Formats: sequence, structure tokens, C-alpha cells
Amino acid sequence: MSETRPLDLTGDVGLLTAALVDVESVSGGEKALADAIETALAPLAHLTVVRDGEAVVARTDLGHAERVVVAGHIDTVPLAGNLPSRVEGDLLYGCGTSDMKSGVAVALKLAAALPSPARDVTYVFYDCEEIEAARNGLGRLARTRPELLAGDFAVLMEPTGGEIEGGCQGTLRAEVAARGKRSHSARSWYGVNAIHAVAPVLERLNSYRAREPVVDGLAYHEGLNAVGITGGVAGNVIPDECVVTVNYRFAPDRSLEEAQRHVREVFDGYEVRFTDGAPGARPGLTHPVAAAFARAVGGTPRAKLGWTDVSLFARLGVPAVNYGPGDPNLAHQADEHVALGAIAACERNMLAWLGAP
Amino acid sequence: MSETRPLDLTGDVGLLTAALVDVESVSGGEKALADAIETALAPLAHLTVVRDGEAVVARTDLGHAERVVVAGHIDTVPLAGNLPSRVEGDLLYGCGTSDMKSGVAVALKLAAALPSPARDVTYVFYDCEEIEAARNGLGRLARTRPELLAGDFAVLMEPTGGEIEGGCQGTLRAEVAARGKRSHSARSWYGVNAIHAVAPVLERLNSYRAREPVVDGLAYHEGLNAVGITGGVAGNVIPDECVVTVNYRFAPDRSLEEAQRHVREVFDGYEVRFTDGAPGARPGLTHPVAAAFARAVGGTPRAKLGWTDVSLFARLGVPAVNYGPGDPNLAHQADEHVALGAIAACERNMLAWLGAP
Repeated sequence: MSETRPLDLTGDVGLLTAALVDVESVSGGEKALADAIETALAPLAHLTVVRDGEAVVARTDLGHAERVVVAGHIDTVPLAGNLPSRVEGDLLYGCGTSDMKSGVAVALKLAAALPSPARDVTYVFYDCEEIEAARNGLGRLARTRPELLAGDFAVLMEPTGGEIEGGCQGTLRAEVAARGKRSHSARSWYGVNAIHAVAPVLERLNSYRAREPVVDGLAYHEGLNAVGITGGVAGNVIPDECVVTVNYRFAPDRSLEEAQRHVREVFDGYEVRFTDGAPGARPGLTHPVAAAFARAVGGTPRAKLGWTDVSLFARLGVPAVNYGPGDPNLAHQADEHVALGAIAACERNMLAWLGAP
Repeated sequence: MSETRPLDLTGDVGLLTAALVDVESVSGGEKALADAIETALAPLAHLTVVRDGEAVVARTDLGHAERVVVAGHIDTVPLAGNLPSRVEGDLLYGCGTSDMKSGVAVALKLAAALPSPARDVTYVFYDCEEIEAARNGLGRLARTRPELLAGDFAVLMEPTGGEIEGGCQGTLRAEVAARGKRSHSARSWYGVNAIHAVAPVLERLNSYRAREPVVDGLAYHEGLNAVGITGGVAGNVIPDECVVTVNYRFAPDRSLEEAQRHVREVFDGYEVRFTDGAPGARPGLTHPVAAAFARAVGGTPRAKLGWTDVSLFARLGVPAVNYGPGDPNLAHQADEHVALGAIAACERNMLAWLGAP
């Protein structure tokens, strides 16, 4: 166990956020913070606490018919000279204030404050969300201990500006390649120029009309874009290969397989090789538990366009949304901050939902 | 001076070629061969021999009204397990047999065999032709001792399969850039995709009609081609820059400045930055000395499409052609070889030209 000062889960949620922020936890270095969280939760008799690597899972087991999951990652992007935290007026500055230790603070307050929630609750605090997907702590739990993530509905407390963001879009990347034939560029007519041959690929991207489907009542917005292009052998050689890397962001009414099929159709006639991909997640707001959550929180739910860990819950059959006090536009910025009032409002809304019969 | 066996300039030109080939002279390592050439030429009373780095220049000074230059590089590309030389039937195999020690052997034979040529002759044997232009020995002489290269006409004895190749095309490279605006690829409509923006650049290349002008009686063939393309920031970012590198090979009726203006016109609306360029050279076969050369050698002169060192002579005001016994298609190949009969035929033709009154 570390020498970090014990966390006070019974005081002000803004102070708790500052305490969490001041325990540095860049991805891969979460041990001190995971220890502090485990130490704070362990004495609470109404919770069963499980430690898995640098993830901590705490569950009530009251025998309710429904179980909800409240989750947040405890790691941050690398520091940018923005620790320790500091308060200016109503704003708390520091690395992780928005993304997402303010959400983690709310979850920890709920865990301590609600010995008898209206639904059983699983609190998940996990590591390595900000780096490569293979190391993601929530993904590890989903693979190795999926029973710990089971539930009827999940709330990921990522920064959403206090609005519900439902589901997420899927993403895939593909390499679209054109082949040619090398020759000396002084006698270019003996070759076939593969860079020239990708002109139709770029034309198809330029004329592509992205879908904007409504899924479970939320409006999504797809996109198909080149994110890289490479070609060329030498300054005097007609190149025999050119590769365009495309990224397709697709709405959650389409499976990963359907999205791949679509990309193959768009680039019919070219070699298409998929390099990675992850399905999206439907918003799931039609589920009664989710509807109760939306009523308690208020506002107008909107679609999440980026890919987030709610997709991991979707794969386990758990509808999930993003909802948290941080401002997503401030995530990963040197001047990252969060409004103390927003954290308190989020805490009130979550208490109203989980505490209500 | 090295311990290389002395060169015999009075014997068979094929044997002399083999002796030259067997003195390894990869670019930058020509000293032993330059020493051997200087040693072989120094005793010839009708020649003034100058050594400059690893270049050797030998001149007659008979007071003729006309002077011609016979030049060849003595370096080779790196070995490919193809030394020492070997003979199979009429073919001599080995690194540099075609490009261009057979041409150098002919020039050395002429230097020794013609104490009283019909025109004054300057023989130039130079280093570092096969590597970056800045180290080219002929270029060094042109900059530092241009008087050594003065003349009315020059023959570069590069491999041409025994045909006269007149002049050379110019070459330039330019970077054609499109700019955009970065955004996250999940919300691509906030950005401007620079890779998509080069589609018209590639379309212009695809629809480009290359000129095939006749210059001084020879038919040239231009080309404008992409030889490289780069763009992309990360797999989830709309890229803000894409650069297409193009190579324009232009006929010698166009100056480098005219060629640059043309490229700017073709890519009007895009950023165009020139990274390198070298003018071509007119074939110059209309000059009386050149016409006499063409008559003596026979065959039908053709245009040289690649860029060669004749351009360096052109800049000094010396019309120049390529003419040599090697096969240009075998240059830089592991099985590089030359026909002994072709070397002897070249020697006869050059003797007929330089020896005739």
C-alpha cells in the first residue's frame, strides 16, 4: 500500500476530486491511486471489493431484480505541467480534472453514501483507458471476469458536460491499395503509375455522402475519410504501389461486419485490407432502467459520435451511456479544468436516480 | 601510386576493357584506376596530362581550328558479386563492362593511337558519376577548370548500344501541396481533409498529355509523373497536409525556367515548391563537327530521354552526344556484360572519325 493520504468519501465532492487529481496516475502508473481507492472502499460493509491489477470493483448485493454499473477510468494522459490541482473561483484546474477524476469522485461518493440503493450497483474503477486498447483495464475485466461487469444498464462517467451521450459509433480502418508497374521516370510510359491510380479512390471519398441515421431516438453522423496516404519508390521511379488508409466511423445500427462490407463496396475494384475495427454501441435508452436514469438526470440525450468504452459494455449485452461533469473539449489540454458546481450537480442527479425507489 | 598492373594501351581493346574492369572503382574508390590511367598516359609525348582529384584529363595541342572532347566516367555502381571479369564466347561479363569501362577503353586506345588526330582532342576520365550530382567529377571540372572542357563538340562514351543518342531531356522535381484543417475523425465535418483535396492534382496528372517535340531532328518524349505522395497525422485525425512529389522530364527545347513555369500552370491553385532540377541539352547534331561524327559512325541518331552529363557540356556551350559500345539496359545489373565485337566496332568508328582529315 502506498503512503497516499486516505481519501475522504464523506466530504465535499470537489475536495475529493482535488484529492484524486493530486495522486498522479498517468496510464501504467495507477497503483498509488488504485491502492487509495481500494483502501477507502474496503471498510464499507455494504460493498464487496475486488482488486484486479490496478482496477477496483465494488458491488452491493442486496438481491434487487436490477443491477446497474457505474464506471470510470482512473488513469490520465501524461502531465502537462498541470499538477498539483488548484482552484480559481468555481473552477478546479489540473490533469484529469475533467477526464475523468471528477466522474470518479462522484462514483466514490455514491458508493459510500448509498448503503441501500434502489437497484444493486457495481462500481468499476479501471486503468489504462488513455492508451492502446489492448491494455485497457475494462477490456481486461470483460475478457477475464465478465461476471463483474454484468448488469441491466451502465453509466460511464466520462466528461459529457453533464448531458447524457448515448451509445457510440463504431470505427474501422482499412488500407485501400492500387498497384502499378515500376519504370524509370524518364521513360514513364513503360510503367503504370500507382499514385495516379488512386485518383478515383480520392474522388469516391470526395463524393461520399455520409449517413446520418437516427438510432433509438438519437441522431448519429457517420464519416468516411482518408487518414493517411503513402506511395513512392525514388525520385526517378514510377511507383508500383500507393496505399490510402481510410477510417470509417459508423453508426451503431451497423455491425462491424456490415461496415466492412460497405467499405469493400465503396472501394470496389481496389485491394482493401482491414487493419483494425471496433463495433459501436446502441444508446439503449429505451430500456426501463435507462429511461428512469434519463428522467432523473434531465436534459436531452444526444448521440456519442466518438468510440468509447460503452462499446465494451455493449459487447457484454449491457446498454450503456456516457454521463459526467467534465467538459469533453478540455480533455487532454494543459489547462484542463472542471466547474465545481458541475460536479456537485452531477452528484445530486446520480443520487436522485440511484437513491430513488 | 598503386600496385595495379600497368595498362597496355596498344593491344586489344577487349583485353584493355577487362583490365579496367578488374581494377575495382566503385564511386568514391577510383584512386587506383585513376592512378593507372594517369601512369599509362603520362609517357605519351603528344598529350598534356592533368590530374584533378580522381579525374585525369589528357589533351593534344596541335593548333587545329577545332577541338573535340571524348569523355567517360571511370566509377561504377557497387559490386554485385560480378568481379573479376570473365569472357563467355563474345561476351565480357563484370561490373562496369557496359557502364562504361568499354567506352573508357576505346577512349584510351584513341589517346595512344592518334598522335596526330585531324582535330585537337581532349580526353576526360572522371570520377563519381554514379552517385549524387554534387560529387560528380565532370561537374567539379566544369565549376573549377572549365577551360579543360572547352571544345566544339563532345562525345560521352556512355552505353548506347553503338547508336548516337543526342542531347538529353531535363528533369525537375516539385512538391505540390494541399492544405486542410485538422479535426478528430469522429467529427470529420469540423475539419478539411487535405488528402481528399489532392484528388484534382492526380486527375490533372492522369489527363496530362505529354509533349513529343522534335528538336534538331530528334524526337523527344516528355513525362509528368507523381513519384511520391505523403499525408496523414494519425489514424483518428483528419489530415491538414498532403504533398504530391512530381517529376517532370522535359525536352531540350524548354529551359529549366520554362519547365518550372509549365509545372506551376499545370498545378495552378496549389502550393508548388521546386526541390531540384537540371536543364536538358539540345542534340547539337547540326554543328559541322557533329555532322562529320554522325557520318563516320553511321546509324540513325536518336534522342536521349534520360538526363546525362551531356547537360554539363551544354551549360559550357559545348554540343554533346552519348555514344558507346555498352548496352544501356544492362547497366547496373548483376549480369552486366558487353559484346567484344561491339567494343571493336566502336573503336573502328571513332578512329575513322578522329583519324580522318
